[in-house]
Amino acid sequence: MSSNVKIALDAMGGDNAPDIVVAGASIARKRHPNLNLCFIGNSDKIKLLIKKYKNLSNAKIIHADDVVGSETRPAQALRHGKKTSMWLAVNEVASKNADAIVSAGNTGALMAISKLQLRMINGVTRPAIAGFIPTLKGLSCMLDLGANIEVDERNLVQFGIMGASFCSAITGKNNATVGILNVGEEDQKGFDYLRRAGSSLSDETLNLNYVGFIEGSDIIIGDTDVIVTDGFTGNVALKTAEGTAKFFMHHLRRAFRSSILSRIGFLLSRSAFTKMRRTVDPRYYNGAILLGLNGICVKSHGGADSVGFSNAIEVACDLIEHEFIPKVNDSISAAEKIIQTKA
Amino acid sequence: MSSNVKIALDAMGGDNAPDIVVAGASIARKRHPNLNLCFIGNSDKIKLLIKKYKNLSNAKIIHADDVVGSETRPAQALRHGKKTSMWLAVNEVASKNADAIVSAGNTGALMAISKLQLRMINGVTRPAIAGFIPTLKGLSCMLDLGANIEVDERNLVQFGIMGASFCSAITGKNNATVGILNVGEEDQKGFDYLRRAGSSLSDETLNLNYVGFIEGSDIIIGDTDVIVTDGFTGNVALKTAEGTAKFFMHHLRRAFRSSILSRIGFLLSRSAFTKMRRTVDPRYYNGAILLGLNGICVKSHGGADSVGFSNAIEVACDLIEHEFIPKVNDSISAAEKIIQTKA
Repeated sequence: MSSNVKIALDAMGGDNAPDIVVAGASIARKRHPNLNLCFIGNSDKIKLLIKKYKNLSNAKIIHADDVVGSETRPAQALRHGKKTSMWLAVNEVASKNADAIVSAGNTGALMAISKLQLRMINGVTRPAIAGFIPTLKGLSCMLDLGANIEVDERNLVQFGIMGASFCSAITGKNNATVGILNVGEEDQKGFDYLRRAGSSLSDETLNLNYVGFIEGSDIIIGDTDVIVTDGFTGNVALKTAEGTAKFFMHHLRRAFRSSILSRIGFLLSRSAFTKMRRTVDPRYYNGAILLGLNGICVKSHGGADSVGFSNAIEVACDLIEHEFIPKVNDSISAAEKIIQTKA
Repeated sequence: MSSNVKIALDAMGGDNAPDIVVAGASIARKRHPNLNLCFIGNSDKIKLLIKKYKNLSNAKIIHADDVVGSETRPAQALRHGKKTSMWLAVNEVASKNADAIVSAGNTGALMAISKLQLRMINGVTRPAIAGFIPTLKGLSCMLDLGANIEVDERNLVQFGIMGASFCSAITGKNNATVGILNVGEEDQKGFDYLRRAGSSLSDETLNLNYVGFIEGSDIIIGDTDVIVTDGFTGNVALKTAEGTAKFFMHHLRRAFRSSILSRIGFLLSRSAFTKMRRTVDPRYYNGAILLGLNGICVKSHGGADSVGFSNAIEVACDLIEHEFIPKVNDSISAAEKIIQTKA
């Protein structure tokens, strides 16, 4: 990581702010000692917390009087939120003082504030929230996770293009497979606009590796690197997967605690289970991007702990390092040219 | 189970028919020795298979020349399917020769054939597919699982009413909680028609225990007995949960096999894990109902084994025993009266 990379942190966003933001920043700084960090929020609280971590002694602090609440509506955050830590943190990117912003705060407000300050990439009709999920073959990127409950064909095509760029920046895959989430793999299944989006995504001139429709059960298999869907379905699917994961961890713990023999069994197989837990631990997949904006804005889960928050910072670092925004700009404008030529 | 209960089995539907249908029927008959079973399909094949199971010696067989293929479109099944095992099996219920039909065949075709022959319950605008999923607190019913990719407010209200009856017949709960799946619990989240459906479902005169919007992560917690959603979202959510379950079982097996110590650990904790596997085993939740029809039609998973298929027969038995169809008829007509009074 080069020494002039700078990330703005909304220190007050999320359930356990500012504590986990500062602790997460310290973890990230251990991995990237050159990383410049700027905390935005209640300066007294931040100063006190920073004292605990030697590697944060040179971090910058920008004071913010106010905080966006978890229940605040986006419109309200836009009207009355100009003194909030979230607004000022996004402003650091908008005014080119920082290369990325990371926040664990209210998603709707973060999208509204970022859209207003960072503006959308030329040609993008709707921004999307994109995140990674663990699969049997590694990581897959899914979008939209909840920014748009309704989408059209053009939105889905742009999600596919932007998702492939995002996937490539984070996983290093250059020929990411792209699929559309549907209720069946057959061509006649689902909505008409899904078929039309599929037909556009498979257009050779777009240079995408489009693999067709996939079902909910295919997500976790991992053959599709980028899973494109509307924000309603994506949000429900992601949260259902998270819920099912918790269900299994609950039963696993119960099974190991159910008898003395099982407890001994657990002790013997503990190292294997620690490895397994690492694979399925959502903290290591924390960090979704608000995709389609002219700047890097990473959203951490509101309930993330310091390890989770440090992973969201890691996502921001990866995107900066891979010059993500100019690349997405290029691929969107190339796609727009193709669409205009056809029209 | 009274001795005059009769179930028609589509012996040729599903990936492993007729073998698993006959084997599953034998398992069901062990639990219900009075149950009358009728196999519909290739009589030569069925006769050969039945010889293996003593408790099936008095089962009836109706020959069918043809089979509905897994790729057959519903319209095609309606036009050319009159000699198929599925058609003739549904016909047994339509002509009052049987109390229920169970099939592991093509879902779309089964819905179309059943809708035509059994007709819809008076007032029901759309039938739905409803199934059970394991949760931390037992079982929850989810619908629609894929019959209608688009729904309106009235459909969702009827799904809630029918789902509560279904849940009560299977689990014995009389005051089942009903929730609508959405991208957030707050009132302003999601689509307008979800809000309108929620407002109708909470109407006291309907006498439902409506709990509001729930999120994907809430499904598995089990506080909501009946989860109401459109067929697109429901299908994706169910399959995502199934996929995630497979992902965990895969990692669990791998963890136990990863070293000699882990293998010994597994041997020690095996009985606890056998119990856990039973809790999460999808075979024990197999059997979805096509809800809203004037007859009991249970759909088994196409890839079910004999244990899974026997569970689908069990669902049919429960519904017959609880006089499910007359009860749903009553609750739908009561709801229709309320809606008409308001209009």
